[in-house]
Amino acid sequence: MNTVTELLQPVENDLDDLILELKNLIGAGHPILQAAAEHLFSAGGKRLRPGIVLLISKAISPEFCLTTKHKRLAEITEMIHTASLVHDDVVDEASTRRGVDTVHSRFNTRVAVLAGDFLFAQASWHLANLDNVNVVKLLSRVIMDLAEGEIKQNLNRFDSAQSFPKYINKSYCKTASLIANSCKAAGVLSGINDENLTSLYDFGKNIGLAFQVVDDILDFTGNDKQLGKPAVSDLASGYLTAPVLYALEENKQLSVLINRELAEKDDLDNALNIIMNSKAIESSRKLAEDFAMLSKEAIVWLPDSEYKRALMALPEFVLSRIY
Amino acid sequence: MNTVTELLQPVENDLDDLILELKNLIGAGHPILQAAAEHLFSAGGKRLRPGIVLLISKAISPEFCLTTKHKRLAEITEMIHTASLVHDDVVDEASTRRGVDTVHSRFNTRVAVLAGDFLFAQASWHLANLDNVNVVKLLSRVIMDLAEGEIKQNLNRFDSAQSFPKYINKSYCKTASLIANSCKAAGVLSGINDENLTSLYDFGKNIGLAFQVVDDILDFTGNDKQLGKPAVSDLASGYLTAPVLYALEENKQLSVLINRELAEKDDLDNALNIIMNSKAIESSRKLAEDFAMLSKEAIVWLPDSEYKRALMALPEFVLSRIY
Repeated sequence: MNTVTELLQPVENDLDDLILELKNLIGAGHPILQAAAEHLFSAGGKRLRPGIVLLISKAISPEFCLTTKHKRLAEITEMIHTASLVHDDVVDEASTRRGVDTVHSRFNTRVAVLAGDFLFAQASWHLANLDNVNVVKLLSRVIMDLAEGEIKQNLNRFDSAQSFPKYINKSYCKTASLIANSCKAAGVLSGINDENLTSLYDFGKNIGLAFQVVDDILDFTGNDKQLGKPAVSDLASGYLTAPVLYALEENKQLSVLINRELAEKDDLDNALNIIMNSKAIESSRKLAEDFAMLSKEAIVWLPDSEYKRALMALPEFVLSRIY
Repeated sequence: MNTVTELLQPVENDLDDLILELKNLIGAGHPILQAAAEHLFSAGGKRLRPGIVLLISKAISPEFCLTTKHKRLAEITEMIHTASLVHDDVVDEASTRRGVDTVHSRFNTRVAVLAGDFLFAQASWHLANLDNVNVVKLLSRVIMDLAEGEIKQNLNRFDSAQSFPKYINKSYCKTASLIANSCKAAGVLSGINDENLTSLYDFGKNIGLAFQVVDDILDFTGNDKQLGKPAVSDLASGYLTAPVLYALEENKQLSVLINRELAEKDDLDNALNIIMNSKAIESSRKLAEDFAMLSKEAIVWLPDSEYKRALMALPEFVLSRIY
C-alpha cells in the first residue's frame, strides 16, 4: 500500500515550497510566532489538504504549470486548517495532538489564541487578494463551518439521542467542508464548468467524510503509541462518533452509561466493551467505504495523468488505515 | 457638550436595528453563544464604530435611504471589533472591560475563543457576500492589522526604547485601521471617486488615532469607578502609551523603573508621579488635538446635512473626554 508521501509525490516539490512559504509568512518579524510556526508547519503535518488542492489543480490541466493563484489557494487551505486546529486545541483543552505538544501547552493559551487569529487573518487577506469573489465566498463559508462545527461538537457532548445526520453534518463542518470547498475553488480558478465544479466539490466532501469516519474508527481500534491501546479519547470527551451511534442502535444499556456522562467507575471500559462487541465497527467501516467510493466516482471525468491516478488512489489509502 | 448617544441620534433607529440583527445572527441556534451575544451586544457597547459607518454612508448621499450593503458593512464592522475585543481579553487575561465582566471571565476561555472565532467567521462570510472584492480587501486588511497590533503590543511590553512611530503604528493597527477602512469601504459601496475615498480613510484614521490617544491619557487622568483613582492599567501591563513615551523623553529615571518591569515596591506609584509631574499629559493632549483636527479637515467636502454635522462634532466629542 502507498504511504501518503508516495501519493503526494507528483506535487512533492510544490509542497516543500509551500511549507517554506508558510513558515516565512507566519514567522516573519514576530519572534513569538516564529517558534509556533516552526512547530506547526514542521514534520508533524501530513500536508494532505494542500496536497489535494495541488493534485486537483494539476489534474484539471496536467500539461500546464501551477499558477501562483493555485499555489496561494493551497497555502490558504493549510493556514485555515492549522488556525482551526490551534484554536480547537484551546477549546478542547488538548495537550497533545498525534503525540506532539499543542501550541497552547508548549507555549500558552495567549500565544495559541494569537497564532490562530494571525493565521485566520493571513488567510482572509491572501484570499481577498486572489481577486475572485467566488473563491472568497467558498473559503469564508469554510471558516464559518469550522466555527459552527466546533460549537456543535461541544453542544452535543454526551447526547445519546443525537441523530446520525447531525453527526454527518458536524463531520462535514469540521473536516469535509474545507476539502470540498478548496477543491471546488481550485476548479473556479481554472475556469471549469459548473457540472465539473460540483463534482470536484463532491470528491472533496466524500473523501473528507471518509477521512473523518476512519479517524473516528481509529479512536477505538488504533494503537495509541503512548497508551499502547486505543485512545478512546472522543468517547471520553463525550463526542459521539459513528461507532458509538451504531452501537447505540443495537444496545440500549450504552445510552444509560453515556447519559450519565461515563462518570461512574468502569463506565468508559464498559462502554468500550459494548461497542467492540457490537457490529458498530463493521458498520462504520462500511460507511467509510461508501464515502470513499463516492469520492472516486466524482472524478472519473478528469483526463488521465499521474495527478488523477494519485487522487484516485487516495480513497483507498484513507481506507487502508482501518484494515 | 454632546453625549455619544446625541451625536449618533441621526442614525439611532438604524443602530437599534443593527444591534437586534447582531444578537439574532450570533445567538441563533447556539445556546452557548446566545448568552455571550446578549452580554456582548447589550447596553455596554457604545456602538461608535457602526455609528460612524452609518453616518458616513448617509453623509455621502443624505437624500437616499441606506442600502442593505451599507447596513451590512456597519454590522460587519461591529462583529470584527467585538471578536477582536473578546480574543484580546483572553490574551491580556483581562477580567473586566469598562467595568463589565469579560466573556472569558463570565463564561470561560473556551467560550471566549469560540465566540470570537464565530464572530470573525460570520464577518468573513457576510463580507464575501457583499460581492465587492475591494471591500473584502479593505476589511480583511483590518483583521490582519488587529492580529498584528495585538502581537506588537505584546512584543513591546516594557520596552522603554520603543519609538513614537512604533506606538502610532500599534495604535493604527489596534484602533484606527478598522475605522479608517470601514469608512473607506462605505465610500466604495457608494461608488465615490478615489480622492474622496482617501479622505474618508483619513477621517477614520485620524479620529481613530485621536480616540486611542484620549483613551491612553484617561488611563492616567481618568477616575476608575471601582478604584476611585486612575487605573494606570496600561502602564502596569507594560504597554507604553503616549504619556509614558513623552515622559521618557524628559526623565531618564523613568526608563530605569520600566526596564525592571516596575517589579520593585512603589515602582508603579513612582513612575506615575514622574509622568504626572512632567509635560507628558499636556503633550499627549496636543497630539490628540492634532489628530482630531486632521479628521475634521478630511471631510469638509461632504455636502451639508445633519449626518455631516454629527461627523464634524465627533472629534470634539472625543477630545471632550479629556477636558
